[in-house]
Amino acid sequence: MGFSLRKPLEVAGGLIPRMHRRGRWQQLALSGLLALAVSGCVTAQTEPLPSWNDGPAKQAIVTFVENTTTQGSAHFVPPAERIATFDQDGTLWVEKPMYSQVIFVLSRVPKVVKAKPELAKVEPFKTVMSGNREAIGKLSEKDLLEILAATSTGISVEAFTTAARQWLAEAKDPRWKKSYTELTYLPMQEVLEYLRANGFKTYIVTGGGQDFVRVYSEATYGIPPEQVVGSAAGTSYGYDKNGKPVLTKEPKLLLNDNDAGKPEGIHMMIGRRPLAAFGNSTGDQQMLEYTKAGDGARLAMLLLHDDAQREYAYGPAEGLPASKVGAFTQALYDEAQKDGWTVISMKKDWKQIFSWQ
Amino acid sequence: MGFSLRKPLEVAGGLIPRMHRRGRWQQLALSGLLALAVSGCVTAQTEPLPSWNDGPAKQAIVTFVENTTTQGSAHFVPPAERIATFDQDGTLWVEKPMYSQVIFVLSRVPKVVKAKPELAKVEPFKTVMSGNREAIGKLSEKDLLEILAATSTGISVEAFTTAARQWLAEAKDPRWKKSYTELTYLPMQEVLEYLRANGFKTYIVTGGGQDFVRVYSEATYGIPPEQVVGSAAGTSYGYDKNGKPVLTKEPKLLLNDNDAGKPEGIHMMIGRRPLAAFGNSTGDQQMLEYTKAGDGARLAMLLLHDDAQREYAYGPAEGLPASKVGAFTQALYDEAQKDGWTVISMKKDWKQIFSWQ
Repeated sequence: MGFSLRKPLEVAGGLIPRMHRRGRWQQLALSGLLALAVSGCVTAQTEPLPSWNDGPAKQAIVTFVENTTTQGSAHFVPPAERIATFDQDGTLWVEKPMYSQVIFVLSRVPKVVKAKPELAKVEPFKTVMSGNREAIGKLSEKDLLEILAATSTGISVEAFTTAARQWLAEAKDPRWKKSYTELTYLPMQEVLEYLRANGFKTYIVTGGGQDFVRVYSEATYGIPPEQVVGSAAGTSYGYDKNGKPVLTKEPKLLLNDNDAGKPEGIHMMIGRRPLAAFGNSTGDQQMLEYTKAGDGARLAMLLLHDDAQREYAYGPAEGLPASKVGAFTQALYDEAQKDGWTVISMKKDWKQIFSWQ
Repeated sequence: MGFSLRKPLEVAGGLIPRMHRRGRWQQLALSGLLALAVSGCVTAQTEPLPSWNDGPAKQAIVTFVENTTTQGSAHFVPPAERIATFDQDGTLWVEKPMYSQVIFVLSRVPKVVKAKPELAKVEPFKTVMSGNREAIGKLSEKDLLEILAATSTGISVEAFTTAARQWLAEAKDPRWKKSYTELTYLPMQEVLEYLRANGFKTYIVTGGGQDFVRVYSEATYGIPPEQVVGSAAGTSYGYDKNGKPVLTKEPKLLLNDNDAGKPEGIHMMIGRRPLAAFGNSTGDQQMLEYTKAGDGARLAMLLLHDDAQREYAYGPAEGLPASKVGAFTQALYDEAQKDGWTVISMKKDWKQIFSWQ
């Protein structure tokens, strides 16, 4: 609110005689009440999304929020039903040259090999231990899942969280030499804040691991663990040698939160259809379709990475090269046009990409 | 808040001359601000849990809330981490003579048999169609799961929700002739409200079906769908004949939210350990252990059904008969004593059971 009674009173205390002081106090209280009473309006009047250029993308977001939150609007939605979902990799933060979680998982391989030296001679661990970046970059999804299982299961939830937290505190990305959690897009952080200021619950719906993303989601995005839906392995409940309950991560995939898994995961974890959804690749297609298929005002947005200078460029529009990670295909672009999704051009729509620039 | 500017102004309007009106308006505004400023305290000062008799159970709840929410307390917990979980059947509402969801599922059998007449000659459908209450009461868990799969899968999420909503609107329980959603315990509703008023997020963590409980949780308990963790079947995403996205319920159990499945489900769906947990049977044991094993102030409570006159009596204490549904065994009672869980006696601790009494 930015409103404090105590401070002005102390300041005024030495200067104004007692009778006046009381008058001033009442005045402050009164203006404070007015501030409280109109604070909803004040929030709405502040120019939202300052890092966005004026254009159809910014306009689509603002119009959607006004339509769904203005009392009396034909598309007004009660606060309890205001759900917005965000893909993470490539939508809220950088996903190139590799998903951050893949880099984390690879960083854990030496520890696993130390515990089980026989793995050093077996693929895909042999390639990872070689340190050959090019060969590592060519590992298949099956290889990565095998590495994921070896490095992220069979340990307690607490041990995994500690390892992830430690890695996040130390690791730097190769291009900007920043922490991975500093590679979030400022304009998308503004969308998260703008939606929350208007009564929306913001969720991450990511193909990434739920346990991994939950370690930093609250500090990085203001999104609490319970609002992170991600690919989820099962855990098993048991007891340690002192009889204390322990949840151990199991190599049993309960939710593959990509493609059709996104609406399925949203149903399981949230139980409501989102009003707004944001993605950037074919893995988000079904989430956007599902969101858009609901009644009333809906917002579906796709982020196009078309800014090689400030970030990366990959995708079909303007003849950009195709990408294996975060594929934005021509078919996706066509569906966006047909189904009324808004494409965000990083290059044209964003004044600034990162907060530290 | 119970504070409204408009009403007193209208009332005052006809009686008080203009000058006085403005003075009165300022006065009202001022007292309003004060009301806003102290509203946290007002909530805390209102006597909580009015349907509870004074005694160790009520005291345990109040002490826990004071310890975790008072700034400066050694066990103070920030609001974001205040999670409380509640079993439903037998903890928030009546589970006798049968779980409500079982009655709902059985009520759907004739519809299924009409569509597939060959089922009428096959068990367990034959028994259900016979209408023989005693035989139906003896159906095994395996039988019930088979009936559940036949009646609650292969249909869209929307169709299931509509059927459940319709059943809930019409069905009455055999003993009190009330809607099932009226069979919630008033003292537990007060605990939900008391915790929420003190910044807790309240969750249902039930062995019942997540999709079923979410239909009424918001209206019945003030708990939104996204705060219901229940046994969950998977869905599959597809398209109807018009190309519109559809989620179809599948006979694939993703989460059996009983016993060890409760902490596992809490980890998957919430990602934080609860500070407080409430249950009534062996199916809640692991949730209470897991809750109690956390640091700081924790509250674990078990409801003992020992009031045959006002509700039902089943359980080990005072030589009560053992029960298959909602078993409160001697071993559970012993663990409660050893691990510092508080047992709530329905008979002694509750002044009133239902709001309509």
